[in-house]
Amino acid sequence: MLKFYDKSSAPALLDMLRRRSAGENPEIMATVNRVIDDVRTRGDEALYEYSEKFDGVKLSSLFMSEEEKERLIAMVPDDLRRTMERAAENIRAFHEQQKQTSWIDASEGRVMGQRVLPLRRVGIYVPGGRAAYPSSVLMNAIPASVAGVDEIIMCTPPKAEGVNPAVIYAAHLAGVKNILTVGGAQAVAALAYGTESIKRVDKIVGPGNIYVAMAKRLCYGAVDIDMIAGPSEVLCICDESANASYIAADLLSQAEHDPLAASVLITTSRKKAEEIDAELARQTDLLARREIIMQSISSFGSAVIVDTLDEAAALSDEIAPEHLELALESPFEMLSKIRNAGSVFLGHMTPEPLGDYMAGPNHVLPTGGTARFSSALSVDSFVKKSSYLYFGREAFNSLADDVIRFAEAEGLDAHANSVRIRK
Amino acid sequence: MLKFYDKSSAPALLDMLRRRSAGENPEIMATVNRVIDDVRTRGDEALYEYSEKFDGVKLSSLFMSEEEKERLIAMVPDDLRRTMERAAENIRAFHEQQKQTSWIDASEGRVMGQRVLPLRRVGIYVPGGRAAYPSSVLMNAIPASVAGVDEIIMCTPPKAEGVNPAVIYAAHLAGVKNILTVGGAQAVAALAYGTESIKRVDKIVGPGNIYVAMAKRLCYGAVDIDMIAGPSEVLCICDESANASYIAADLLSQAEHDPLAASVLITTSRKKAEEIDAELARQTDLLARREIIMQSISSFGSAVIVDTLDEAAALSDEIAPEHLELALESPFEMLSKIRNAGSVFLGHMTPEPLGDYMAGPNHVLPTGGTARFSSALSVDSFVKKSSYLYFGREAFNSLADDVIRFAEAEGLDAHANSVRIRK
Repeated sequence: MLKFYDKSSAPALLDMLRRRSAGENPEIMATVNRVIDDVRTRGDEALYEYSEKFDGVKLSSLFMSEEEKERLIAMVPDDLRRTMERAAENIRAFHEQQKQTSWIDASEGRVMGQRVLPLRRVGIYVPGGRAAYPSSVLMNAIPASVAGVDEIIMCTPPKAEGVNPAVIYAAHLAGVKNILTVGGAQAVAALAYGTESIKRVDKIVGPGNIYVAMAKRLCYGAVDIDMIAGPSEVLCICDESANASYIAADLLSQAEHDPLAASVLITTSRKKAEEIDAELARQTDLLARREIIMQSISSFGSAVIVDTLDEAAALSDEIAPEHLELALESPFEMLSKIRNAGSVFLGHMTPEPLGDYMAGPNHVLPTGGTARFSSALSVDSFVKKSSYLYFGREAFNSLADDVIRFAEAEGLDAHANSVRIRK
Repeated sequence: MLKFYDKSSAPALLDMLRRRSAGENPEIMATVNRVIDDVRTRGDEALYEYSEKFDGVKLSSLFMSEEEKERLIAMVPDDLRRTMERAAENIRAFHEQQKQTSWIDASEGRVMGQRVLPLRRVGIYVPGGRAAYPSSVLMNAIPASVAGVDEIIMCTPPKAEGVNPAVIYAAHLAGVKNILTVGGAQAVAALAYGTESIKRVDKIVGPGNIYVAMAKRLCYGAVDIDMIAGPSEVLCICDESANASYIAADLLSQAEHDPLAASVLITTSRKKAEEIDAELARQTDLLARREIIMQSISSFGSAVIVDTLDEAAALSDEIAPEHLELALESPFEMLSKIRNAGSVFLGHMTPEPLGDYMAGPNHVLPTGGTARFSSALSVDSFVKKSSYLYFGREAFNSLADDVIRFAEAEGLDAHANSVRIRK
């Protein structure tokens, strides 16, 4: 099922992976622009209308009532509830370690430093339909909560049959304050610009369909957004020590997300690659989402045979995968050679789904090679840093002539003047 | 010269400030798209051609020779050289304190953590002409150097008369490795995608004209970019303790940047505002860039009279200024009420130009209200974080059932299978 490459054909593989992202669509842009303008002009009224038009639901309120939340939460089975509580606890514990502290440097008559300040209000978008993943609510909202964001607002499309109960329980566990039952571009516009009943937020995060992604892009600037995620990918590097059926299962778990998802194997052992390939075929038949899996694997499933693990590391860094599994005898030694990866899963007993749900690290990761320069969603995503400086007269005097000289060298004499006038 | 507002008219002020940013220009987008495509297709050859066509310079090499660097550096006067060395030292010292460390949490049979990793290669764009500011080279390149970036490449348009010597000395001080004498959209494209002689970089930072800004936007994704800076602004909050001529000089230093720059005063004292206004008129006549200053002040110069400092703080947080001066009797008390500001200058002896050049904090700051959610350029801008996790068999077993349950609740049975197969 996998397409085999040797290292000389690695550029073709890279090219293929990079071409997965969807292009622009000017029609969608025009539609979304109209919705945004309308929400900015007519506020709540537009939200009620769009919910009826696009979602077929006549809302009596834009916000979910406490009674409705309780009713939905009561529907979540006890064992799933305990699983979600445990996940939330692990995710919170990991993200607590990301917290940064403000600092001060007070010496020589001057005080300088940097404050770390949480955003005031944040919106979490949660898609409707099957893609309403409670794990995604936990992963998006808990870092905001740990960062100390004052108010976390979730929005999700209204549904006649009611919103997914597990999503509401996840929101509850993650510290979401209000749930807005509005979806689509209209929800993004309302969060970005505010309406009569919705206060504008500082940042909007979370996955969404193509309209939601476009609305986030178009509102960026008025509001901050998370990265627009591309199709997901896993890269698995393995040696002879790997268990072929494990690796096959991991590649398939990636493939079931989306026909555009990519599962790539790099190995020093052609024999192992062939075993894995045979396992893939065998396991696929037993899986519910085999249609999607077959599309994904036949388009993007790849195996690259290399001579050494150093070559594997170099190729991996070129690909800069979202998820990287190191199914190796010495995975930590390999870690030291890896620089570009969203999240790294080490050893034989750390399949990616462990990190998707329960372990603690975030599953919102840089895709499509952006792990070269981007990081997972984290507490950092919900704070900003602000520098401050205070100079007493003596400290001022010690720098005054330098500032004047530098400003004059740049031809900015009003800059020089603001120092000269204080001397 | 200032336009006076009371607190009830603050929304009009906010509106005016937000409307300063330039709109899109589809013609420029089309031109820049052509240049990018051409550089991607023809590489170095296209760079030589564009340099001749746009800059009127026939290059013999794309990179500046060591001899040329030394020749230019020798032209920098000794006193300016010492000033720049001192600035570089202070900027480096401040940014050293921003460094973050990788961490590990190894307990209960599993190992997790987060690595902080520097970007491999970074490009710094430096405009030609009068806007070739050596201070900007220091502020953009030193954080990259402190972050541990392997290779910092500067690019700047070629000039028949030679590049500004102080810019080359700044590059030298900041740890820039190679200087590319190519400018415009073609330089951005070369850095983003690479050519025969230029390796692609992971991130491009630094100011540029409208073509450069557009090229950065269009290449974003293939490469990371810094924020696209809007027009600059200063907000000064003062009380009776402020010296009117100081504040006037500070507002003017902002105004000289650009006709779109905004200088805003908020004060509890109408009398002080009137004194400052009179000072503005008097000082403007003496300044070289009075034409630009008069355009900026007459369009955007504003004074808001409020009743209390708490009102001033609330309005300031709405504006979220790039630079905030607190010319107050108790500036640190006020700091505690401020959440949205790029950089805060406290007291009467800390004019903004001190921070622009010498003090140490970065002068590349979020503009146009984005300080609500963005931070100054910093060491953070040149690292990414990568999480890692390792589970031993026992630790795996302790989470396995939860992962299976969560994955099945989300309808992802290949995810569940990758855990079940290991049990």
